[in-house]
Amino acid sequence: MIQKKIILQPYPRGFHIITDVILSQIGPLPAQGILHLFLQHTSAGLSISENADPDVRVDLESFFNKIVPENEPYLRHTLEGADDMPAHVKSSIVGIHLSIPISSHRLALGTWQGIYLCEFRNHGGHRTIVASIY
Amino acid sequence: MIQKKIILQPYPRGFHIITDVILSQIGPLPAQGILHLFLQHTSAGLSISENADPDVRVDLESFFNKIVPENEPYLRHTLEGADDMPAHVKSSIVGIHLSIPISSHRLALGTWQGIYLCEFRNHGGHRTIVASIY
Amino acid sequence: MIQKKIILQPYPRGFHIITDVILSQIGPLPAQGILHLFLQHTSAGLSISENADPDVRVDLESFFNKIVPENEPYLRHTLEGADDMPAHVKSSIVGIHLSIPISSHRLALGTWQGIYLCEFRNHGGHRTIVASIY
Repeated sequence: MIQKKIILQPYPRGFHIITDVILSQIGPLPAQGILHLFLQHTSAGLSISENADPDVRVDLESFFNKIVPENEPYLRHTLEGADDMPAHVKSSIVGIHLSIPISSHRLALGTWQGIYLCEFRNHGGHRTIVASIY
Repeated sequence: MIQKKIILQPYPRGFHIITDVILSQIGPLPAQGILHLFLQHTSAGLSISENADPDVRVDLESFFNKIVPENEPYLRHTLEGADDMPAHVKSSIVGIHLSIPISSHRLALGTWQGIYLCEFRNHGGHRTIVASIY
Repeated sequence: MIQKKIILQPYPRGFHIITDVILSQIGPLPAQGILHLFLQHTSAGLSISENADPDVRVDLESFFNKIVPENEPYLRHTLEGADDMPAHVKSSIVGIHLSIPISSHRLALGTWQGIYLCEFRNHGGHRTIVASIY
């Protein structure tokens, strides 16, 4: 097993394709295996979605903001800002880890699949991913 | 590691138990290990839920349609039909990969657990899963 | 690969940090690897979220109850109680399996990350997790 920490630059709030960033950091892939990505944060997420039309990323942000609104009157955990507790909820919904098969030295993603960083904070800063290949 | 592509027949929109389809395709299981399933699509999902009462599958479809409605006025990605962008959102919520332990040559599913294909498109067509056993 | 069944005591409905329970059950960790946790139930979930402020756990419960309300008039699967079908939906949303990297004989969790049992039933009883280390 190979493990490596990947430090992502700060991204603005929203959904961002990071497939190429990940691939450039992890080096050559084995003929066959699994790439496991684990995000060490609780207010962002990792997902896989459509890699072509940028409008998909905008619509994902709009939908998740509607499903998990800010400033709900019943919330208690509000000290870190109105975007913080909704970010924890969205992170639980989307998840923070991905396992992707490796076939013929390449990620076995579908034609339209890209790896997403889902940044749910307004100013999330650097994010760290632990990548494992086995 | 063993890897195999599984091509699913087209399923109608809704939640469908595919445990037996998967088992019939992957062949004998090792004494111990993990079965990893990865769906190569962005408008369908893989999940694990109740395997007994068919009403659960109907109610899951109803709930997800309510949580992620179609024809929201703020959406941009609408060219592929009203069901397309909501399908991407649902896919991000449910996820597209499962890791299931293998014990004593069998999937270590709970008594009431079945593997689900969640077809979020009205006409999703064939769906491909990459199965890995390790 | 090491596999072990962990039987959790009954937890009340809500979000509960079980990191220490898991660690105390699985024994010493290898220098490097993956811990895979698989919950054998369809009305509870496993997640990773904030491990410090207990208000986060209360707010997660509030948010998920709002996103997936009980007693929706269109539901069919109601025989097991008003909390049952929403529990299946929440379980599909949150997921029932986690893969966590192991580095230097420790779980490579972020500073603020804890492993959560999400108990979605009012009286869920004992819950079983299959833990695999590889």
